[in-house]
Amino acid sequence: MTAFELRPIGRVESTLTDLGDAPRQPDEGAPDAWLVLDPELAPALDGLTRGDEVLLFTWLDRADRETLAVHPRGDTTRPLTGVFATRAPDRPNPIGLHAVEILAIEGHRVHVAHLEALDGTPILDVKPALGPTSAR
Amino acid sequence: MTAFELRPIGRVESTLTDLGDAPRQPDEGAPDAWLVLDPELAPALDGLTRGDEVLLFTWLDRADRETLAVHPRGDTTRPLTGVFATRAPDRPNPIGLHAVEILAIEGHRVHVAHLEALDGTPILDVKPALGPTSAR
Repeated sequence: MTAFELRPIGRVESTLTDLGDAPRQPDEGAPDAWLVLDPELAPALDGLTRGDEVLLFTWLDRADRETLAVHPRGDTTRPLTGVFATRAPDRPNPIGLHAVEILAIEGHRVHVAHLEALDGTPILDVKPALGPTSAR
Repeated sequence: MTAFELRPIGRVESTLTDLGDAPRQPDEGAPDAWLVLDPELAPALDGLTRGDEVLLFTWLDRADRETLAVHPRGDTTRPLTGVFATRAPDRPNPIGLHAVEILAIEGHRVHVAHLEALDGTPILDVKPALGPTSAR
């Protein structure tokens, strides 16, 4: 099948620099961080504001794309499980999905709460969390 | 910044073939559909079963990647809004995100309920919906 080209729209700026320090999920102690977008894309943020919950899509560029099964959460006492049944970064297309709250927007820079992505992680997309139909 | 290569892992098989017929969100009347994965990737489905809620990532290959603002839901009476504040398919990296329930798994084919993606849509990833920490 045809391959598609992802073009990063920005990078994460975070105090998290070491995979060993990264919490596995944001509610396990992740720091606040900045999403630094390409300045030309600032107009695409219009309509977002402090307090909004958004879904952040990243590219987990250190992942192994050939892995099809893992021990969940790296715990070898748990049975090997298909990667599509886990959130492991190793998978054919290592897209990271993070639900974050916006703390502030300054031009093309977005401050967010509790992001478990490492410093320098490429950003792919931002979408609003999906609320009820009436609010769309 | 460096671009990344997405390799589709399969295609959607659906009775939805026309953009004009596609509901904007799955709870607005989308049909059941099949996710037909590359047969070599079937082991990556191990651990998923009927009744599971998963997040399906697709590539919206008909999207316009240069669009930065849209009228939400195509309603021109609503003000232009940045694409990152909307779920519009037109965006720099047109990744589709769909929450679906698994109805059945037959080898590399996964039957899912209420999917608004068109027939032939490339599939990028499948992840479990994130439950409470205790269940991970």
